[in-house]
Amino acid sequence: MLKSNLYLDYAASVSANPSSVHVLGMLAKKKLENARKKIADILNVRSEEIIFTSGGTESNNLAIQGAIWSWLEKKGKKNLPHIITTNIEHPSVLETYKMLEKKKLAQVSIVEVEKNGIVDPKKIKKEIKKNTVLVSVMYANNEIGTIQPIKEIAKEIKHYRKKEQKSFPYFHTDAVQGANYLDLNVERLGVDLLSLSGSKIEGAGRVGVLYKRKSLPLVNIFGGGDQEQGLRPGTENLEAIVKFSTALKSVQSVKEKETKRLAKLRDYFIAELLSIFSHCALPGLPGGTLADKKFKEVPLIINGDLENRLPNNVNITFPKIPSDLLVIELSAKGIMASSKSACKSSRAEGSYVIKALRPDSDSEIGGVRFSLGKNTTKKDIDETVKALSLILAKLKKWYT
Amino acid sequence: MLKSNLYLDYAASVSANPSSVHVLGMLAKKKLENARKKIADILNVRSEEIIFTSGGTESNNLAIQGAIWSWLEKKGKKNLPHIITTNIEHPSVLETYKMLEKKKLAQVSIVEVEKNGIVDPKKIKKEIKKNTVLVSVMYANNEIGTIQPIKEIAKEIKHYRKKEQKSFPYFHTDAVQGANYLDLNVERLGVDLLSLSGSKIEGAGRVGVLYKRKSLPLVNIFGGGDQEQGLRPGTENLEAIVKFSTALKSVQSVKEKETKRLAKLRDYFIAELLSIFSHCALPGLPGGTLADKKFKEVPLIINGDLENRLPNNVNITFPKIPSDLLVIELSAKGIMASSKSACKSSRAEGSYVIKALRPDSDSEIGGVRFSLGKNTTKKDIDETVKALSLILAKLKKWYT
Repeated sequence: MLKSNLYLDYAASVSANPSSVHVLGMLAKKKLENARKKIADILNVRSEEIIFTSGGTESNNLAIQGAIWSWLEKKGKKNLPHIITTNIEHPSVLETYKMLEKKKLAQVSIVEVEKNGIVDPKKIKKEIKKNTVLVSVMYANNEIGTIQPIKEIAKEIKHYRKKEQKSFPYFHTDAVQGANYLDLNVERLGVDLLSLSGSKIEGAGRVGVLYKRKSLPLVNIFGGGDQEQGLRPGTENLEAIVKFSTALKSVQSVKEKETKRLAKLRDYFIAELLSIFSHCALPGLPGGTLADKKFKEVPLIINGDLENRLPNNVNITFPKIPSDLLVIELSAKGIMASSKSACKSSRAEGSYVIKALRPDSDSEIGGVRFSLGKNTTKKDIDETVKALSLILAKLKKWYT
Repeated sequence: MLKSNLYLDYAASVSANPSSVHVLGMLAKKKLENARKKIADILNVRSEEIIFTSGGTESNNLAIQGAIWSWLEKKGKKNLPHIITTNIEHPSVLETYKMLEKKKLAQVSIVEVEKNGIVDPKKIKKEIKKNTVLVSVMYANNEIGTIQPIKEIAKEIKHYRKKEQKSFPYFHTDAVQGANYLDLNVERLGVDLLSLSGSKIEGAGRVGVLYKRKSLPLVNIFGGGDQEQGLRPGTENLEAIVKFSTALKSVQSVKEKETKRLAKLRDYFIAELLSIFSHCALPGLPGGTLADKKFKEVPLIINGDLENRLPNNVNITFPKIPSDLLVIELSAKGIMASSKSACKSSRAEGSYVIKALRPDSDSEIGGVRFSLGKNTTKKDIDETVKALSLILAKLKKWYT
């Protein structure tokens, strides 16, 4: 018997290339397609509607740039396509729109969310024009955890398409933040494109997924091989893809139970904060100032809607204390919080999401985001509240 | 002491996000920069000249599309940029050029390689025009293993730039196939952009690297966060990046020895094939027909230059036998060979690289590639030659 020491290439010796014709390649191909089927079943779609990418950023870019180029290749650059989005999308959506505008390849309308971080579907509908090829609204926000009314927006878009007898605008949702807790059934959501990322699902490999409705035309961003129907050339990251499919299935199985548990913890956290910071800071928003006399000048704002939010997200602002400072102080006490999207952390400005909620606020102040996870307990919440009190005492000079 | 159970997000619980401000993020950032430094040292460049991508396909696309858009943003779409390449580049280069032409964003000149699979630097030089922004020639070919005269082409380009007092055309090389065996010193090579991929280095994670000379302007393909100087947004695949840096360092340390060992095996393999297939098949090319009477009608061609080729590559053609058939027969005997780039395996046509060497050959015939690796021994070669003889006897009807 011959041993297969004479390999196609090094890749084959580690894990075979699913696009190779030989036996190892065929076995790899089977693994790839099994993973694809598993994900398709969770989304209630067909296997061929699942495209693997390198991550959430690429999935969002492929959905947006792919739809834009499909229009441009058909209609030319004189009749620019129009796209609609909101002002609190992830940078991989917002910056892609800005980039397309800069390259003079698209026109963009940015709809502002309400004070609670939720967009009004009617305002989206109002922006739809004859050349609107795409609407992109995120499922849940990465900083403030607010859940957008995807089904309602989908209804408005379908209504428009039916009335005008057109196949577009297409509806894309960046569901990266929703994978662990929200309904991923594409039929129920009513979207045409949906992005997921392995980096937000525990145990998943570093890959992205883009669901693309079969009938929707999309143009690839990368030139290259025939992988993923030519929509995403490049050797498939098989190991990470298999991990992703297993991890997504696993979070789906505990989703309901875990959502309940975390929502309870989240609400307890918020209640504790509000009980200490007892008096409302800004009209119409939950919050308060610290009951304790020495903290009485520290108002607190809970950012984002309290009902329609991810079960694992709490985001707060102390309007006089820069959030970056709080994050560093919390980190020193072993609590990993965040002041804005890590993707934008190298910039000096504060969170553009918090700024979108309160345009007249000091942009340096921002908000502090706490994300609860499967290991988070009530004790962690208590210790965090206690740590915050100690930090506020230390940072007295910022508010007195 | 507080435990860090209150995570920024799930990503943090697995491996922290290097762009996060908290302690875990800072530790991750340090790991990322150490890996970058390690790679920069091997290439003899500065750390900030190393950009991490998702793989070789993306590295090539970023180099090409990035340079094209940098021109377009400066000079507008009326004065289209011109690019020069060869007809045996990897699909992630060739198809990217075709895509840019289709989108009416660039003009492309494709220089044909010589019969031996090597491009003539003078022919590249001849194609340079006033609007040539980029020349892209691969370091070593993925199918036939031929090594291109990168230093000579670099000299021609530098000479032109000096004469015209211009900073472009820039010179890009896809070095994905060369990482294990060839000199990666950018200064000696004289290139401005160089692509590497983890999928071709044993033990490396599934990431890509793009070296970009500091002064060279490049525009990002993806819209998104600030990672990789904004040139490649998206959460860094830290685990794979660290693996890549360690693996690249490791192959560099055994490169010389392994190159010698494999070149000897490769030449033994070719000699064995030629000793059986004793008489030259096509004028000017090495090859022959089988000495054994029953095989006398089977000519053999060794594809690609015998001197300037990767130490681990042997590519042969039996002009009457479709290569796909041979690959399947070899696979059944436990030998993993390949008939064309796995990236193009879903297409019915044969290898475009073999077609480039002999334009009048039957496109179904193609070539069979054998890649030797660190586990390959003389015994494997002997068994492969024996297996080929058995297969040829079985496939008699194809050539009698």
